[in-house]
Amino acid sequence: MNQGFKKYIPFRPEVMLTRDWPSRVVTRAPVWCSVDLRDGNQALVDPMGMEAKLAMFKTLVEIGIKEIEVGFPSSSETEYEIIRELIEGGHIPDDVTIQVLVQARPELIEKTFEAIQGAKNVIVHFYNSTSTLQRKVVFRSDMDGIVDIAVNAARLIRELSKKMEGSGTNLRFEYSPESFSGTEMDNAVLICQRVIEEIGATPENKIILNLPSTVEGSMPNLYADQLEYFCKRLPGIGSAVISVHPHNDRGTAVATAELALLAGAERIEGTLFGNGERTGNVDLVTLAMNMYSQGIDPGLDFSDINRIRDVYEKATGMRVHERHPYVGALVFTAFSGSHQDAISKGMSYMVSSSTPFWEVPYLPIDPADVGRQYEPVIRINNQSGKGGAAFIMQTNFGFDLPKAMHPEFGAVVKTECDRTGTELPPEEIFRLFQQEYIDIKEPYSLIRHKFQEENGETGEPHVVFSGTICYSGKNFEVTGEGNGPIDAFFNAVGGMRISGFKFLSYSEHAVSTGSDSMAVAYIQLLSPAGVPVFGVGISHNINLASIRGVLCAINRAVKKA
Amino acid sequence: MNQGFKKYIPFRPEVMLTRDWPSRVVTRAPVWCSVDLRDGNQALVDPMGMEAKLAMFKTLVEIGIKEIEVGFPSSSETEYEIIRELIEGGHIPDDVTIQVLVQARPELIEKTFEAIQGAKNVIVHFYNSTSTLQRKVVFRSDMDGIVDIAVNAARLIRELSKKMEGSGTNLRFEYSPESFSGTEMDNAVLICQRVIEEIGATPENKIILNLPSTVEGSMPNLYADQLEYFCKRLPGIGSAVISVHPHNDRGTAVATAELALLAGAERIEGTLFGNGERTGNVDLVTLAMNMYSQGIDPGLDFSDINRIRDVYEKATGMRVHERHPYVGALVFTAFSGSHQDAISKGMSYMVSSSTPFWEVPYLPIDPADVGRQYEPVIRINNQSGKGGAAFIMQTNFGFDLPKAMHPEFGAVVKTECDRTGTELPPEEIFRLFQQEYIDIKEPYSLIRHKFQEENGETGEPHVVFSGTICYSGKNFEVTGEGNGPIDAFFNAVGGMRISGFKFLSYSEHAVSTGSDSMAVAYIQLLSPAGVPVFGVGISHNINLASIRGVLCAINRAVKKA
Repeated sequence: MNQGFKKYIPFRPEVMLTRDWPSRVVTRAPVWCSVDLRDGNQALVDPMGMEAKLAMFKTLVEIGIKEIEVGFPSSSETEYEIIRELIEGGHIPDDVTIQVLVQARPELIEKTFEAIQGAKNVIVHFYNSTSTLQRKVVFRSDMDGIVDIAVNAARLIRELSKKMEGSGTNLRFEYSPESFSGTEMDNAVLICQRVIEEIGATPENKIILNLPSTVEGSMPNLYADQLEYFCKRLPGIGSAVISVHPHNDRGTAVATAELALLAGAERIEGTLFGNGERTGNVDLVTLAMNMYSQGIDPGLDFSDINRIRDVYEKATGMRVHERHPYVGALVFTAFSGSHQDAISKGMSYMVSSSTPFWEVPYLPIDPADVGRQYEPVIRINNQSGKGGAAFIMQTNFGFDLPKAMHPEFGAVVKTECDRTGTELPPEEIFRLFQQEYIDIKEPYSLIRHKFQEENGETGEPHVVFSGTICYSGKNFEVTGEGNGPIDAFFNAVGGMRISGFKFLSYSEHAVSTGSDSMAVAYIQLLSPAGVPVFGVGISHNINLASIRGVLCAINRAVKKA
Repeated sequence: MNQGFKKYIPFRPEVMLTRDWPSRVVTRAPVWCSVDLRDGNQALVDPMGMEAKLAMFKTLVEIGIKEIEVGFPSSSETEYEIIRELIEGGHIPDDVTIQVLVQARPELIEKTFEAIQGAKNVIVHFYNSTSTLQRKVVFRSDMDGIVDIAVNAARLIRELSKKMEGSGTNLRFEYSPESFSGTEMDNAVLICQRVIEEIGATPENKIILNLPSTVEGSMPNLYADQLEYFCKRLPGIGSAVISVHPHNDRGTAVATAELALLAGAERIEGTLFGNGERTGNVDLVTLAMNMYSQGIDPGLDFSDINRIRDVYEKATGMRVHERHPYVGALVFTAFSGSHQDAISKGMSYMVSSSTPFWEVPYLPIDPADVGRQYEPVIRINNQSGKGGAAFIMQTNFGFDLPKAMHPEFGAVVKTECDRTGTELPPEEIFRLFQQEYIDIKEPYSLIRHKFQEENGETGEPHVVFSGTICYSGKNFEVTGEGNGPIDAFFNAVGGMRISGFKFLSYSEHAVSTGSDSMAVAYIQLLSPAGVPVFGVGISHNINLASIRGVLCAINRAVKKA
């Protein structure tokens, strides 16, 4: 076995004598900040150009995100030009704040201030790395040196901001001790407090302190512990908005962000669909919809998720995975028979109970809430049960098969699934239905028919059926009477060789195909051998539909015997 | 804004007066159970056939998974036949236990016992749904009715197992209160305790109690609370192995599984790469590698992750996403300049310090531990910094550019990135290097040259260079002397119009291309205008490489002037 695990240094948890976060619950949405155009963009094989960035920015605004990190303007000409276009082209609504990232280095800070001239609302976001590891192997500096970098940057930013007073630009500041989660918490407190003081943050004019798990390196509860420890010890906490920026290296960024909200975070930086460096940033769609599914207003609009996904995929060249929560192609789909059955029952319950709540098993949210359809919820393969095929017939084609018929048609479908080994699309389910029930014309078929119906003296209807039945190429004239058309027909054919069938059940309903309405009848007979069997008939005429249904059942029974 | 959130019922947390799990840490791996062939399979558009299931089973065994749920044999002929083939074809090693799933229904349980005849080690896994919602809308039953279903199934299983005594099959049992996380915990305790008693579990012969979040419906800390509550209240806990089966509807299945380990779970059911119904099951690869990266032996072997991914993708028709932790195509890649710089420094530190630990920023694990390469770690686009292109030249082509040259060549690459807007592959980086440094032959080129070197009386070497330099089509004879070849050549050309250049630095190293070793020289001159400029020369002959480097620097300076 691979012994490589021995070279990894375990995360060292903060010593917590008490912790409050596990007893709290999330009750409202945080401030959302999108870093799609920066952290997301820097992680793309082919970064976004002007057109893609503008399309993404527009979509982020439409979703309702009010703080959008648009780039790192001092890092490249492309980044600089895009920010100028956003400002000069009037793309930024008055209630949206753009955010620009810059390392804590004087020449880059100066270029950043050039880039934001003329914008209405700007967050200048500066950072330097503070982690134990980076101090050792990258900067080869002690903590004092690292603090100086941040403090000097804060001082310069304050100076440059003073020069912009009266320019019409509302400036706010954000500081990230980058790789916060890899930093000793007492050092994180130290550097953040020095930055608060140097930049002159106050409770009326707060600085955003953004605390990234730049590389996710611990279980999410340990990050929550770090955050609670930090918040409790930071003297200037009242002058700070606590923001988190989780990455997903351990696949737990969503949980990290959620537990961080319990531990003191008020703001989350993330991206649509979790795009970002390596494994990505925390996914804002999942976070927001998780709140939504708990009855909390996320303040973001994902009611047309497919359109947002399309913009994203085009701009980034990335694909949203089939199993992505709330968005993936397969996440509102059930193949399993028992799941399909429960969903079907849940949907019936929703209708019959008029409940104001969403009470459907196996579907955490109503797919319609994100603009998704019900149709693909149930899909059919050899993992599916008897109810699935009937559900498809009902939702896709309007055929409301009687409950007792589900196992019979389900078995037809399952045999085909086992044979092909693949999914059967709805059209194929319909084809099987057609082949099994509609196309069957042998050995009995109806050549012509006539009904005569009148109310007699008793007031009861009296029906006489007469017609020609073809049996294996030979025509027979038959006549029968009854209190209704089916009864009359059944009595008419009872005189043929098909005697011995018993009538078990009947149902019929209209099915609309386009502007045309057809009747479909489901007839269940008991064969002379004692086997229940269904037949289906379709016609514009409800009587003819019924007769066809009876003949279908008889033909199927004869065929199977 | 969308008001649809109001129809969702918030998760109701257990009331926890005390909780122990947040103070615990994970120190060892759980028992792993793969449900790839069952839960994973039932979620595929095209379920696996015989060949695919056998290939997956073989791979799961090779990874080191000892408990593998192979199917739901009573649900379809395909499932049944695959299980028979696994048993009769001798595919199951003696130390591997197969697990078969069955609903708590008598006819299905009986068929399941038929399916497992002849297997050596089997876990019979039975379940029924217990959640508040399913009781209400699906089963329309009170809790007593639900308990009866489980207890009756347990009784039948115990009877059928007695009949198998002496058959050579070692049987164990697993019970899942399906949708556990949507069940009132006191009811979950009740039904599990009744099952423990009915099936006769003891501390020597434990039952596996598997507690699914069938639909993930709460934050992971609340699931941990549920689990701790359940474990503390279950009278027969000593006769049970606590197993979890997290789904990923909220994108937090990995966190749920991890916190569950703190709260009392000893066993995890999941799948490779998180395949499974809707958003999938918890991902065993991520869970195991998360432990690995914390210095904990996961007991599973993912040292050739690409091969495992290939088997998986072929069998399931699914794709592993580019940002999937530890596995995705982009997760060991850094485009950002500062990340590239830090990775590069971390790798240098690893070599220079001989540290026994992995101490590289931005890479949570050594890519080699999962059979991935270093080469693609740093990729170049307009988000990349000066160090990235040099890193590519070093790792891909063996050119060790002097540190002072990084910004100069980095700017060349960045200009090209801004121009194309796309990623530049390593070959393109090399082409730019070639174009900028090697192909430049104007206005100066060397026609012929001669060195004479001898040690004089002082013992110091004395070198005389004489040769022909072509300048814009016209040849000049030059001669110079010095204490080394570069010095001599530099003095020789100093008499031409190119006087005014000052020598700043020099480095040279061998670079192997195949069996051939070449020398590459990096020469930095200060131009007459006061601008530092690099030149590069390559030759089998170290002297010629240096001369070419000097001419290259001069040509580049002249061209830029």
